[in-house]
Amino acid sequence: MSTLSPWKDKALFTPGPLTTSLTTKQAMLRDLGSRDTEFINTVKDIRQRLVALGGGSDEYTAVLVQGSGTFGIEATLSSVIPPEGKLLVLVNGAYGERMLKIAAVHRISTLALRFEENTIPAPEMLETALDGDPAITHVAVVHCETTTGIINPIETYGEIVRRHHCTYIVDAMSSFGAYPIDLAACGIDYLVSSANKCIEGVPGFSFVLARTAALKATRGYARTLSLDLLAQWEGLEGDGQFRFTPPTHALLAFQQALRELEWEGGVLSRGQRYWLNYDITLTAMQKMGFRPYIEASQRGYIITSFYYPNHPNFSFQNFYERLSAKGHVIYPGKLSHADCFRIGHVGRLNSADVRALMTAIAETLVEMGVELEKV
Amino acid sequence: MSTLSPWKDKALFTPGPLTTSLTTKQAMLRDLGSRDTEFINTVKDIRQRLVALGGGSDEYTAVLVQGSGTFGIEATLSSVIPPEGKLLVLVNGAYGERMLKIAAVHRISTLALRFEENTIPAPEMLETALDGDPAITHVAVVHCETTTGIINPIETYGEIVRRHHCTYIVDAMSSFGAYPIDLAACGIDYLVSSANKCIEGVPGFSFVLARTAALKATRGYARTLSLDLLAQWEGLEGDGQFRFTPPTHALLAFQQALRELEWEGGVLSRGQRYWLNYDITLTAMQKMGFRPYIEASQRGYIITSFYYPNHPNFSFQNFYERLSAKGHVIYPGKLSHADCFRIGHVGRLNSADVRALMTAIAETLVEMGVELEKV
Repeated sequence: MSTLSPWKDKALFTPGPLTTSLTTKQAMLRDLGSRDTEFINTVKDIRQRLVALGGGSDEYTAVLVQGSGTFGIEATLSSVIPPEGKLLVLVNGAYGERMLKIAAVHRISTLALRFEENTIPAPEMLETALDGDPAITHVAVVHCETTTGIINPIETYGEIVRRHHCTYIVDAMSSFGAYPIDLAACGIDYLVSSANKCIEGVPGFSFVLARTAALKATRGYARTLSLDLLAQWEGLEGDGQFRFTPPTHALLAFQQALRELEWEGGVLSRGQRYWLNYDITLTAMQKMGFRPYIEASQRGYIITSFYYPNHPNFSFQNFYERLSAKGHVIYPGKLSHADCFRIGHVGRLNSADVRALMTAIAETLVEMGVELEKV
Repeated sequence: MSTLSPWKDKALFTPGPLTTSLTTKQAMLRDLGSRDTEFINTVKDIRQRLVALGGGSDEYTAVLVQGSGTFGIEATLSSVIPPEGKLLVLVNGAYGERMLKIAAVHRISTLALRFEENTIPAPEMLETALDGDPAITHVAVVHCETTTGIINPIETYGEIVRRHHCTYIVDAMSSFGAYPIDLAACGIDYLVSSANKCIEGVPGFSFVLARTAALKATRGYARTLSLDLLAQWEGLEGDGQFRFTPPTHALLAFQQALRELEWEGGVLSRGQRYWLNYDITLTAMQKMGFRPYIEASQRGYIITSFYYPNHPNFSFQNFYERLSAKGHVIYPGKLSHADCFRIGHVGRLNSADVRALMTAIAETLVEMGVELEKV
């Protein structure tokens, strides 16, 4: 056990699982039957609220898929691309790479446009690639690459994808709910996100916002039973039920989390709280001498990567464990070419939580004998 | 809303989601980081307890897979059968059929041995089939076919499967935790079950108890990324973590549920409670004039199928809704050739709950004007 009493959970400055509100967790203190009217209405309400969050166009529908965000991505890629389809993936981090891995295991033909992890994929490269390869039918990109926290311009890509009559898939795992995303305006056909990100539910399922007409045209493409997106949608539209036992408790928590997002003032207000968490973090960290990995104009307010300080006494493991013992959980990096760690700004955390973390980091540097050049 | 106050959940006499203890649900009132030592130790504890429940042989290991039980079945079938493998499925219900569907979507060669839903697959037919088709590499069967509640003799099949040097896969979704199963004695290579069945956790993940040597020999067979059983095991064995965001809350609930199973006295005591629920149900239902679908010698104590009463005033939907309004949720049938409904005996329910249901059924028959011939 840590030095903390187990009665107070640590604050999670991570990409997820995140800190959630007590009221969201308390919504799980019930057992509902999956065929019960109350539960079916819960699922319906969740789906309607999700479509509304995506801009509310009636061209879209919401599909809930058990499992983590990766399950939602795999459900989408393995269900909506025809056998003769070809997927272009814009890659500037681990989650772009993961889409390629999923495509590979399902033997989906791909073209990877890879960029450095601190670089936004250039729209003109997408344009050139689509011009040069008419076999490409689908384009996929990650909105906020959680690897670094970089924000990719999904609306710009969307215009290019649409002009080339391709289907557009966006992994908005860590941005949906915190950045306003208008599905129709971005020309998105499939947006994938997860219960335990900026909507602040508990982990247990992912969701796909799909252009209904596009989804309906995918019959026969699914390469699995459990992750068959069209069949899952047909179940939800038919009798309102999941095809297989749903995570009822996680869904009850999610409905409460969606209500609390509304009470907070919606996506813009939530985004402001996260931005403030980010701003306090960045200012304090830079003052202490830490350097962010992504340059300011490309940085989002979801999660920030910082270089390891260049000091012989710094060890990330030691730093992490000391912060964890003080009640603050940060996250290791996931970069291929740079030693970084990450601090998340999302979940049910506010300025006071962030300031407490900054104080703890300052103390920890002293404890470790790490003196940094102050900015 | 029903006529019940929302403050008291209905009792779930269903195949799942089930009624769970309040303390199990309260274990979810926390947010743990998925890389946190406390959480990693929770996962380790769960895996050890699961192996112990399967007989404790050190030849076995436990793999946790996000999603419902079907996800666990698909993870197993799509990960452990080589491309040139052939799967024989003993089928006497919907869950046997589902394994065939999964095999079909992954283009796994199969042989289905189909039996009537009220009939146990004959071991000698399995013997003959394996003698006659040396291409068969894997055999799968459902232990308790939740379709009807029939119990298939997995130990008898296991001896035949082993003698033919095939790999043996058992779907013990609705029996594990309520029936003693010794994996080694039954010659089981892969047993699949789910968090929300007789261990009385909340839904959100399934688990596979695998013979480690068998699992290790499956490299390269996985047909998906999310449901890759070997990779998931390697993650859990390596740094103790899930590969992708785990359902932390459902796992905390499951650990508590496993403790409560131990406190109840283990599988035998739990089985006795369920058997008593079954016995009270069966006695009372037969007294009222209902007839069970499965004959006594083949019936389990997990769930019982009853024929619709042969009376013009009986409508299942009306019967179901009246019982639901009284606070008791039963379940429709899933049979191809007979009109039945089901009453489950599992979950955190005891004799008092069952007696309350029986009283409600008697009252409902009077309300509906359904007079049955008393036995």
